Order: sequence, then structure tokens, then C-alpha cells
Amino acid sequence: MASLAFPQTNNHVSDHSTLSAPKFHFAGHGNLLRRCKSPRILRKRASYRAEGLIESAVDVPLLTGLEVIERLRAKREQLKVKQQFLAMYSSVLGGIVTDSAAMSIPLDDHMVHRGHGVFDTAAIMDGHLYELDQHLDRIHRSASMAKIRPPFDRETIRQILIRTVSVSQCRKGSLRYWLSAGPGDFQLSPSCCPESALYAVVIQDQSPLDSRGIKVITSSVPMKPPQFATMKSVNYLPNVLSKMDAEEVGAYAAIWLDDEGLVAEGPNMNVGFVTKERELLMPRFDKILSGCTAKRVLSLAEELVKEGKIKGIRVGDVMVEEGKGSEEMMLIGSGILVRSVIQWDDQVIGNGKEGPVAQALLNAILADMKSGPSSVRTPVPY
Amino acid sequence: MASLAFPQTNNHVSDHSTLSAPKFHFAGHGNLLRRCKSPRILRKRASYRAEGLIESAVDVPLLTGLEVIERLRAKREQLKVKQQFLAMYSSVLGGIVTDSAAMSIPLDDHMVHRGHGVFDTAAIMDGHLYELDQHLDRIHRSASMAKIRPPFDRETIRQILIRTVSVSQCRKGSLRYWLSAGPGDFQLSPSCCPESALYAVVIQDQSPLDSRGIKVITSSVPMKPPQFATMKSVNYLPNVLSKMDAEEVGAYAAIWLDDEGLVAEGPNMNVGFVTKERELLMPRFDKILSGCTAKRVLSLAEELVKEGKIKGIRVGDVMVEEGKGSEEMMLIGSGILVRSVIQWDDQVIGNGKEGPVAQALLNAILADMKSGPSSVRTPVPY
Repeated sequence: MASLAFPQTNNHVSDHSTLSAPKFHFAGHGNLLRRCKSPRILRKRASYRAEGLIESAVDVPLLTGLEVIERLRAKREQLKVKQQFLAMYSSVLGGIVTDSAAMSIPLDDHMVHRGHGVFDTAAIMDGHLYELDQHLDRIHRSASMAKIRPPFDRETIRQILIRTVSVSQCRKGSLRYWLSAGPGDFQLSPSCCPESALYAVVIQDQSPLDSRGIKVITSSVPMKPPQFATMKSVNYLPNVLSKMDAEEVGAYAAIWLDDEGLVAEGPNMNVGFVTKERELLMPRFDKILSGCTAKRVLSLAEELVKEGKIKGIRVGDVMVEEGKGSEEMMLIGSGILVRSVIQWDDQVIGNGKEGPVAQALLNAILADMKSGPSSVRTPVPY
Repeated sequence: MASLAFPQTNNHVSDHSTLSAPKFHFAGHGNLLRRCKSPRILRKRASYRAEGLIESAVDVPLLTGLEVIERLRAKREQLKVKQQFLAMYSSVLGGIVTDSAAMSIPLDDHMVHRGHGVFDTAAIMDGHLYELDQHLDRIHRSASMAKIRPPFDRETIRQILIRTVSVSQCRKGSLRYWLSAGPGDFQLSPSCCPESALYAVVIQDQSPLDSRGIKVITSSVPMKPPQFATMKSVNYLPNVLSKMDAEEVGAYAAIWLDDEGLVAEGPNMNVGFVTKERELLMPRFDKILSGCTAKRVLSLAEELVKEGKIKGIRVGDVMVEEGKGSEEMMLIGSGILVRSVIQWDDQVIGNGKEGPVAQALLNAILADMKSGPSSVRTPVPY
């Protein structure tokens, strides 16, 4: 490692004009000192220092490729991140890595610096991928809307994802994957990004399912216009800020209202209600993300109608008053599954306790994940 | 490299349950074959193959950290990207790399998968950074709006950026830098991202300045709400799609109109006009990005007023009719500098040729970049 620090004593003033070559190594400070021959450079540096252009407190070493991997590994250990990333696939690499220090993406990828990427997920339960094909359908719709032509056909992508989970050996967790315009340059136009990219990561699930009722607030962050709300791109800053706003006041999430003031969605989940008429009610999907789990819940809820637990199922306009005055409210998504909302802003929902319909729907989804039909369960060949 | 391909002959069916350990190496296919002992696994695999779960055409090798670097380097050579990236700083690494294969960002960085990052730029001209402090002011405003607390104080960030340019040895090009919520996990909330991050890259400018007049269209992609339009985050998908729409019809960029139908901005540049009354006119900055170059142009234009080339300077509402009926129209930004627009949709602007005011402003900016005051020129100590 060649230290680029400018030590405070004048004796250590160094000439860095030779540092640009990749992987250039100094043996140590002795070398740095021997390079300071020119009085012109010394004068120039003294003048820079006087102007505050050289700040001795800033130590910025030049690193080799190997040092990069070492430092990334050390950083990951130092940060003590709770989530465990078991495997990552990258089409840029054309392979899978299981060393989390190597789970990176080129800085010049259009997804990184311009948000030109879409993503989707799938839960891993008992060695099966849940609703993989439904999520794959959606990422292809998202990619099309974002004008990203995937690097492989649908079946190849599917195989790569299954293979990545297989290598990870993960039997309970989640798979996340991205289609990106790919690396190229730092321009706004992707015209110099020669190949789109696929990335995927397998994350182990270590936390037990929490089904305690939660609080939500109404989001004050503007909602995305329908063209972007219906596309699962990585442009999630509004979603992040909405979530942070909620957490700052002790709530779990913030609910968006659409441009007509109707109930829309949460930052990364759908919302559902049980009305006073005991109907399961969800906002229509034309201005919000088409939730795979929400749609599956709508389908599984038919059993609850048969059992008499609810009287019907409806997808339509949801007024805020209707939502706040509902018997039950719930958040639905592939991460949260189904979770009771017991308070929205100052309004207690129903009797302020976790609702029986939300609980029944959670049980139905869990049963579906564990023993549903093959249309929603893809076995992973470990 | 341990190939994870499933070759087509049954003899090569392999057990991959041992592949999850980082950097696990098989010596070759012989090892793979010797691991196939269990008839149960062989039957399971045959059944998977019948269901199409194992696609022999998909070859996904497991890579070591070293192979990652080698493959990234090979990929970069293969892609033949025109832009040259001379140096990258990463606070996650705590150092600078000059090997473009190592210029990457952790996949779990909140900027990558949630767009939770802001960025800015500065041109490098004759060994000086142009308007570095103005751009630094803006990235700090953007970071604050995106609820990102920078990893270092302003002066340290400034020193790191200067140092990165110094190491790059670049004397003409551009510096791009990002403040991110940092790596952590893949959740929506950044609450498990322990440290925010700073990334910077130096790009060599190899293309000669092009000042030929360009065409623009009106954007059909919805504009961001003011909260997001005034913040330079990496949520640039609307900007990308707007730019792509323009390029598809042979235009250079698409112009956004705001919610009142007033002229707003381009996808990564401001717009300016010379009205029939020979005033330099720009839309106000309350719903659009506060352009550093645009603001500097407004200041430099005062000289043109003195010289009688224009009669005045105004920042205010710009109606589409006024814009389309202007004497001159121009795009202004740190990348494009000042460039004449000769046609907007079907409307030829002025006499359909590059305008004298745009040319004079371009000359003024170029002169300012080369010999402006120290408030806009930061010397780089190479």
C-alpha cells in the first residue's frame, strides 16, 4: 500500500506525480522522501499547504486489487451486518461468489449512478422458491418499462437464479435479483452500456416471524406518478424517506395516498382492509405496484369466504375514512407476509388488536409457502 | 474455478451440496464425479432434469476473490468502454484504486439497491477543479434532503476529492462523487447501514468540445415532484427514460414542463433563452435542480449586458410559447457547458442556427474555467 498521506513535518513533503500508475508500490516513507528533489515542487507544496489544499489529517492510500478484497472483508467484519449474504451471481463476472467481500457491482453500472435498474425478490422456504415465476413475470414487465433488455432469456435467468440458491445452500431466506442497463460509462444515456446485467443475492433469514400489530402513518413524501409506481425500479428514495419518516415517530411504515386522495400502498408492501361489511378490500393496482403476495392473498382469501370468515373480496377505490374506520387493516408483501395494523395516524383500527382475518391470511400464506401447489413452489436442487 | 454446469450426460450429474463454502475448489470434474454416491440424489436430479429445473446450457462457475478481479479486468477490456476511469476513491475501502477492474461498490450499499445516494460533479480543466466548492455546497444540500449524514466533514471530503484527482494525474476531464447511506443489508430502512459512504471517480475527457446546434423535444416522461427535482439523487430513471425518448427520435434531450405547463429543465441540464426583447431568460430554480453552471452563466452574462450583446437577465416563469418563439435557446450544464438548441419539437428556434449569445456564453464559461478567479478554480497539487 502506498500511503498518500501528507505528513505534517516539512521533511515529509512528497512528490505524488508518480503515483498514477496502477498498483505502483512504494517500499515505505524512505522512498517518498527520496523523491522530494525539486525545490520548485517543495515551494509549490508549501504554497498549497498555506492555502489549505493539503490537509495532513486526510490519509488516502493507493490500493492494489488484492488489498481491495482484504479491506472489503475487514470492513464487512467491522460493520457486523446482521444479514448473512450466502451467494451472489453477477453476469458481469459470469459466475457466482460466496465470499461476501466480493459481492460488488461496478461503480459505472447504470443502475448504480442513474438508478437504471429494476429488481424483484422471491422467498426461500423449506428449500423451495416461493412464487418465483410470478416474480419473474413482474421483473420482466419492470425491465420492459425501464427499457432494459435482459442479458439472457427468461428461462436462462430462471436457471441462474435457481443455481445461485442451490450454491448458497440456503433453505430459508430470500433471493433478490436485479436487471440493470449494465456497466459502460457515467453518461446519462445508456447508449454506451454495451451489455445489460443480471445480479442476484441470496440472504439467509435469521429472524423469527413477528406478527405483532404495528402502527402506520400517512406519508408526507410525494408518491411516484403511476408510470414509476407500477415499475419496480431501484429508484426507491421516496420509499426510503417515507419509511424513515415513519420510523422517526415510532411507526412501522407510512401509507401513500394517490393524487385523488385514495389509499394507495405502503413503501414496499400493499395494504388490505376488512370493512365493516366484512369484505376483504384492497386498492386497485393501476397506480401502485402489482403485489405478488397481495394477489396470492386475494386468491387464498376465497377459502375464507367459503369458511364464512369474510363475506366477500373486493379490489377497488379505498377512501381514507373507510380505511381508518375498517374492522381490520393489514400490510401485505413478500417480506412482511401479512401483518396487522392496529393504528393509523391517531386512529385505532378496529379493537386495536391483531385481527383474526389477518391472522388467517398469514396462516394461509405460510401454508402455501410450505405446501402449496407446484405453480407457486419451485424446488431447488441442492 | 469450480464449474457448476450440469453437463448433459448422466455420468456427469454431480452433488453440489458441498459448494457453499467460500473459495471451495474442485480440482476438476473427476472430483465432481466421485461425489455422486447417493442413488437418492441421482434419482432426485433425474427428476429435476425432467422438470426442466436443471438446464445444462447454463454454466455458472463459482469464483474466488482473485478470479473476480481477473474477470472484471477481462470484461472491461472486452466491453471496450470509451471513457477512461483513472482513479476511484471509496470510503468503504478507505483508499484509492487506479485499476478500473477494482472500481466497484458493494451490492448491499443502500445507493445501489434503493437509490439512497446523492451525487455531484466538477470539471477538471488545466489541472484545476472548476466550481468545486459550489458543487460541494450542493451535494451537502442534496445529502441533507436525502437524510444522508456524510461520513466525513466538508473539508475532509474536499481534501479526499482533490487527492483523488491528484492521484489520477488527470488534467482535463471530470470528477464525479457520491454520498450514500452506505452498505449494510438489503432492507428498505437504512437503520442497519452503520456507516454512510463516499465514492469518487475521475474520468478522462477524450472528446473534443462539440458546439453544433442540437434538437430537443418535449418530454413525455412525468417530471419529478419539486422535493425530488431539487435534490441531485441517483434516482435518475425518469431522466434516463426522457433522454432515451429523445435519442430515439434523433434529438439530443427532452425538456420537462412543470405541473403548471411552464418550461422546467432538461434531464441533466438547465435551459436558457434569449427572448425577442434580447433578454437572457431562465426558469426559476424552485422546482428544478439548482444548476451550478447555469448560475455561473447568469453571473458571467452580466458582461454581455455591459457589452450590449443582451439587454438584461431574468429568472422567472417561461411559457412554452415564449421559449419556442425565442431568438435563441440553449442547454446549460457542467457536462454540456453551453450549447445552442436550433429546434424544439417542430419549431425551429430563431434562424435555425447556433446563436451568438450562446456562443458568447460558452466562450465566457471556457475562459472562466481556464483563467477565472480562485473562487471557481481549485488547483490540484499533482
